[in-house]
Amino acid sequence: MAISRKVLKKLQEIAGRDNFSTEREELACYAYDATAQHFLPDAVIFPKNSMEVSAILSLASEKNFFVIPRGAGSGMTGGSIPVKGGVVLVMTRMNKILEIDCDNLIAYVEPGVITGHFHEAVEKKGLFYPPDPASSDFSTLGGNLAECAGGPRAVKYGVTRDYVLGLEAVLPTGEIIKTGVQTAKGVVGYDLTRLLIGSEGTLGVITQITLRLIPLPQSVKTMTAVFKSMEAAAETVSEIIRQAIIPRTIEFMDNASINCAESYLGIGLPREAGAMLLLEVDGEEHTVETDIEKLKVLCLSQGASDVTIALSEVERENLWKARKSISPALYRLAPDKINEDIVVPKNKIPHMVRKIENLSNKTGLSLASFGHAGDGNIHVNIMLDKNQPDHVRKAEAALEALFDYTLELGGTISGEHGVGITKAAFITKEIGKVELGLMKSIKTVFDPKGILNPGKIFESLVKS
Amino acid sequence: MAISRKVLKKLQEIAGRDNFSTEREELACYAYDATAQHFLPDAVIFPKNSMEVSAILSLASEKNFFVIPRGAGSGMTGGSIPVKGGVVLVMTRMNKILEIDCDNLIAYVEPGVITGHFHEAVEKKGLFYPPDPASSDFSTLGGNLAECAGGPRAVKYGVTRDYVLGLEAVLPTGEIIKTGVQTAKGVVGYDLTRLLIGSEGTLGVITQITLRLIPLPQSVKTMTAVFKSMEAAAETVSEIIRQAIIPRTIEFMDNASINCAESYLGIGLPREAGAMLLLEVDGEEHTVETDIEKLKVLCLSQGASDVTIALSEVERENLWKARKSISPALYRLAPDKINEDIVVPKNKIPHMVRKIENLSNKTGLSLASFGHAGDGNIHVNIMLDKNQPDHVRKAEAALEALFDYTLELGGTISGEHGVGITKAAFITKEIGKVELGLMKSIKTVFDPKGILNPGKIFESLVKS
Repeated sequence: MAISRKVLKKLQEIAGRDNFSTEREELACYAYDATAQHFLPDAVIFPKNSMEVSAILSLASEKNFFVIPRGAGSGMTGGSIPVKGGVVLVMTRMNKILEIDCDNLIAYVEPGVITGHFHEAVEKKGLFYPPDPASSDFSTLGGNLAECAGGPRAVKYGVTRDYVLGLEAVLPTGEIIKTGVQTAKGVVGYDLTRLLIGSEGTLGVITQITLRLIPLPQSVKTMTAVFKSMEAAAETVSEIIRQAIIPRTIEFMDNASINCAESYLGIGLPREAGAMLLLEVDGEEHTVETDIEKLKVLCLSQGASDVTIALSEVERENLWKARKSISPALYRLAPDKINEDIVVPKNKIPHMVRKIENLSNKTGLSLASFGHAGDGNIHVNIMLDKNQPDHVRKAEAALEALFDYTLELGGTISGEHGVGITKAAFITKEIGKVELGLMKSIKTVFDPKGILNPGKIFESLVKS
Repeated sequence: MAISRKVLKKLQEIAGRDNFSTEREELACYAYDATAQHFLPDAVIFPKNSMEVSAILSLASEKNFFVIPRGAGSGMTGGSIPVKGGVVLVMTRMNKILEIDCDNLIAYVEPGVITGHFHEAVEKKGLFYPPDPASSDFSTLGGNLAECAGGPRAVKYGVTRDYVLGLEAVLPTGEIIKTGVQTAKGVVGYDLTRLLIGSEGTLGVITQITLRLIPLPQSVKTMTAVFKSMEAAAETVSEIIRQAIIPRTIEFMDNASINCAESYLGIGLPREAGAMLLLEVDGEEHTVETDIEKLKVLCLSQGASDVTIALSEVERENLWKARKSISPALYRLAPDKINEDIVVPKNKIPHMVRKIENLSNKTGLSLASFGHAGDGNIHVNIMLDKNQPDHVRKAEAALEALFDYTLELGGTISGEHGVGITKAAFITKEIGKVELGLMKSIKTVFDPKGILNPGKIFESLVKS
């Protein structure tokens, strides 16, 4: 669907000259996300308010062109990539924190607010917004909602969906809707709020968000523990849960991840270790002290060889450094990676770890895993060189085997990254025909002309 | 739509002779809920498994008769009343707790499990399912999901929706679907789980539920505090929140409620008090001790005249007695009541309380309010004699004024009771035309023939 010059001119009029472009250099900046795939849009537009979003979508409905909403483009499954061309609707200029209401523990924000900026703003007021995706330094709240982002604190605090009370959104038809409430409770009509959350920008464009906040925990303590094997680390996680301690974070790194991070950072990480856990507890000061000591004793009793508790904020950041460096560090193993986001029941982590080792041995490819052990959420990275057809073939087979085993264990193929384009080919493994039919019909209810973010979730266009 | 004898016979064959009836005495038991309205169904059927539910709904689709799912019938807005006749599908015989998985903090249950029984079962294993609607001694988990029940612990722990990971449900067409996941995270496809939750049995019949559990808090402390005025009590609630203490419960009773409870119980409640707060904290023992002391000091500094901390389980139950007795005790004021379930931003509670006093003065009717101050969720009871046309007229005007003011304050007309039939006439006050259009289209996607739970949410059939 080519967009006529007349329509492009109209788009420019809606947003203003400085908020619209068809320049190739500009378009190239909005052609990709964290999946490293690349599709040029026909235009990019930067709306400043919901009225402009409405005008753009009305025009798209009338003139039949595609609109692809986008936050910071930090998505991991291609949700904001214009795979069929069209106009990329960049929401980053709608980035105001409208109000932080300390009396009611609620905030009103625009979707372009950067997650990390929002954390800072609320924490200054003694409040806390727990969802903390790894990309929070640049990801936007709107994007977090579109994908229902998780992050390391989900084990105690839940995911993005659990902190959204209400939304303003623009339908593909251009109509502006309001969903949900501005209060702690509300059950009037169907839950359109949570239908939009995690719908990956395919049902509507979020233009305002009402978020629930909680008091900032008084104290946080961070600890790492080194284990001989991933099994020992996983057994420790099970034991933590059995003892009814809920840390806010239970992260893990496997041997391959530890080695990558060490090659990258050179900070003396134990290269021979089977796994490392990073545990974080928060709450009232006395409880935090008690809990971290309990965790230390527990880890040592489970055979941990080295337990380190951070005594200062600097030490705390050091402990996080290894975990945070894994993603870039992995490129030491191979030039390309397939980054997955499976979830298995917590007590099935050892099974999955063994499977990943088997797949690595069988294919000869490096597989590294790390992630959120407290949720059973494992980021498996299949490292490869995409220029080697043999690699690609083996990686694809490994991926398929990985997904099949995940579902066999009672898990899901996406914990917090969505389906986008990279998992669309696999969705029928997890979602049945009738359920997919319902979802597609819901899509048609919201977007009868199919103009909003086409080619995502249901349609397998692009192989990963 | 009369149901032919042939179809009735078929229904009996599906469920078996002991699980089906068209006897008037039996039908009368399933003609009402807690709204005290009354509509006889054509038949009642008690399925034993999802295959039977599927067969019943397939038959209903084929032969065009209405099916009305029902749990314990404790709903407050008529959600399970067969207002257009049809077959009441009573889910109480699907009441098995299938598994409590302590390793993964997950339970699998059938919808007919009584909420209170489930509490006992998980607490025996050291686990906790926080949602605790007032009717938990007899309400079912399926009904709780259908209405997205809340209860007093929502202030800290959230509502039913926050504890559901996945569902099995039967569509009106008879197809069995699975939604969501069995893991802590999952974002594959649209959120059908939360679309079904709170849909009041209009989209599908829930046949199995996967619930998230948390560790049972080590310790609980309960306290009551008596205030001169509702304003003083409300200001105390605001101060509690400002000090970043989150009790699991912040309940309140106004003067009218206190007096009713005292007349009913005769336990020496302070008849002259403007309001009473019931506060409950839970967590690690030391924190609980510290928090309850902080709350005591805070209440006293805000002018509380009497602060009582329960020292034993018996004393704790005594403190709850007054709060729990209000609902039946209110009938001392008048033979009928309209029980509302509004929510306002927490710091707007004093405004609403003044409004309620005004409405009482203006109409001459008794209005009593109590509820969940920590959520801003106020159960306003308009007491009347339905045989007096004057009462009915005044009560209806008061109700309308109450809803209008609730929405003016940024609130919602239903916090945890749903819309059902009693609020259907008011839904357009809160939900816009476009949003209602989306909801109705979603209803059509799930239930193209409109056979499941007709006359609810969207259609105003019956005046309250």
